[in-house]
Amino acid sequence: MAKLRVGYPDTMDPELLRYFPAEVELVCIPAEPTEPIAIDFWIPPPFSPIAKVWPWLRGVRVAQSQLAGVDGYRAIVGADVIICDAMGVHSIPTAEWVVSAMMSVYRRIPLFENLRQAHDWRARKQANEHYRAITHDLRPHIPPVLQEELAGKRVMIVGYGSIGKAIEQRLLSFEVETIRIARTARPAEKVYSTASLREFLPQVDAVVLIVPLTAETQGLIGAEELALMKQGALLVNAARGAVVQTAALVDALNAGCIRAAVDVTDPEPIPEDHPLWDCPNLLITPHVAASTPEFGRRCVQLAAEQVRRFAAGELLLNIVTGDY
Amino acid sequence: MAKLRVGYPDTMDPELLRYFPAEVELVCIPAEPTEPIAIDFWIPPPFSPIAKVWPWLRGVRVAQSQLAGVDGYRAIVGADVIICDAMGVHSIPTAEWVVSAMMSVYRRIPLFENLRQAHDWRARKQANEHYRAITHDLRPHIPPVLQEELAGKRVMIVGYGSIGKAIEQRLLSFEVETIRIARTARPAEKVYSTASLREFLPQVDAVVLIVPLTAETQGLIGAEELALMKQGALLVNAARGAVVQTAALVDALNAGCIRAAVDVTDPEPIPEDHPLWDCPNLLITPHVAASTPEFGRRCVQLAAEQVRRFAAGELLLNIVTGDY
Repeated sequence: MAKLRVGYPDTMDPELLRYFPAEVELVCIPAEPTEPIAIDFWIPPPFSPIAKVWPWLRGVRVAQSQLAGVDGYRAIVGADVIICDAMGVHSIPTAEWVVSAMMSVYRRIPLFENLRQAHDWRARKQANEHYRAITHDLRPHIPPVLQEELAGKRVMIVGYGSIGKAIEQRLLSFEVETIRIARTARPAEKVYSTASLREFLPQVDAVVLIVPLTAETQGLIGAEELALMKQGALLVNAARGAVVQTAALVDALNAGCIRAAVDVTDPEPIPEDHPLWDCPNLLITPHVAASTPEFGRRCVQLAAEQVRRFAAGELLLNIVTGDY
Repeated sequence: MAKLRVGYPDTMDPELLRYFPAEVELVCIPAEPTEPIAIDFWIPPPFSPIAKVWPWLRGVRVAQSQLAGVDGYRAIVGADVIICDAMGVHSIPTAEWVVSAMMSVYRRIPLFENLRQAHDWRARKQANEHYRAITHDLRPHIPPVLQEELAGKRVMIVGYGSIGKAIEQRLLSFEVETIRIARTARPAEKVYSTASLREFLPQVDAVVLIVPLTAETQGLIGAEELALMKQGALLVNAARGAVVQTAALVDALNAGCIRAAVDVTDPEPIPEDHPLWDCPNLLITPHVAASTPEFGRRCVQLAAEQVRRFAAGELLLNIVTGDY
């Protein structure tokens, strides 16, 4: 019997190839092939266009992505290829990014970086003025509010899958209360459906988006949803940029209604002259949430397990169905 | 019987006075009194010098501080006053600050704030260059290391009291391994004594300082200790500035050996022309860790409980003994 042929992107660290079963044939695939390549199992390049590789491939039966979101894959590879995503691999770094982003906002890390550059210890009082301006909390606080706590905050997690659960697990250790939203309600798990989103928006201190980008989630958060949020509440986007309507987000931020922290934007990268860059109360990280040293290893370990299952005729993990 | 007289600082939010037992007499004390004031139970001002108040007080039997660290109190009030600190009140905000500071470093939040100001998405590659420079990790990582994870890191907590435990509880949810250090070893709790500090320094990715400032802890971390830390390891000071020898810290940072995040410094505030401000790989917050809206309420609730205990002849909480 012919060996199973596994195609991997030429950007993969060769040290990680040892995770694959010894009995398969590993085929290195360039980002822009120049001749046809026959493989059975394909690991598409995570950071370059798959449309430049796909036309050169022959015989592919499985495409095992290294991404959590494989929007756009089906349109390129057609109906006959089994598409698997890398669900689970992103849970740790992405959940950590969400908590980091929230705490950086509540702890005013960007402000303090600016004060460090200005050598100005005493300007810390700006944190108190900012808290009062963004929350409209004018009670006489003693001592001044230079920092906010996660403890006691109520956070809505929109997308209660593997990453959503990892986010929740970490937030719970900070005595945060969570509200769980997913496409389909799961009453036994206290998960509400997306239809409940608007009902909960006025009740929460922060909204964390971690849904896949689908026809249903595109533009999920627009002007009406942002207007339902509490004064000074925090919107966190760790999903895809297009889940939020960018123009509405820019307006809500510039009006001083909400705060936001985003790792993903629409468009992406953000052009140099885009209004997002200068919105107040906005933390931007440039789509880096999952780019950790451990990420590459976990991806390859998943792909290797999938190859083993495919070769053994076992059910694959993370099969993507529907339009996504 | 005369009512118990409780002196509180004039900076206290009057709304919080409702927490005190109805049967005591509350006496408002200015930051700089001009005539003698007789009280039994004193709540010193947290943010102005107690030496300006103390000479005017008569009859004080208990001083209930709102601070976690009451270094200097004994020298002022003498041997006859029971000093109580506010242990426990600072656990939540301080533990949250520690995790925030660590994640802000690993997630490069200050760098990304600078990139936001420069409108420069593509400069995110600086995060990868920085990781390689500070960790000396030259393996070919795929994808580039733009972020580091807390997961899998080994963190030494120096000062395993109520705040140390609160820090650990939060770190554990991120799959961090902790090593516990306290003044006295407590083998049943896997707590090592300060004598083991140097043995563990080369083995950990981060060192969190949360000890009180005493004769034993002053200058605890100097050039030798810093030299024992792993290349690129992170020193977090949430204790008191003088626990770390500032000149040695500046040298270790400027030599590119370690990273640090400090909420406290020596001197404090940092003068405008001090070398700390421009050290590389240093996150500075200006002694704000505990300054949250919830902090004032928790302080007063503790003081009110102490007043109730004192009036009822019960044992007080948080009595400070020894030189600290």
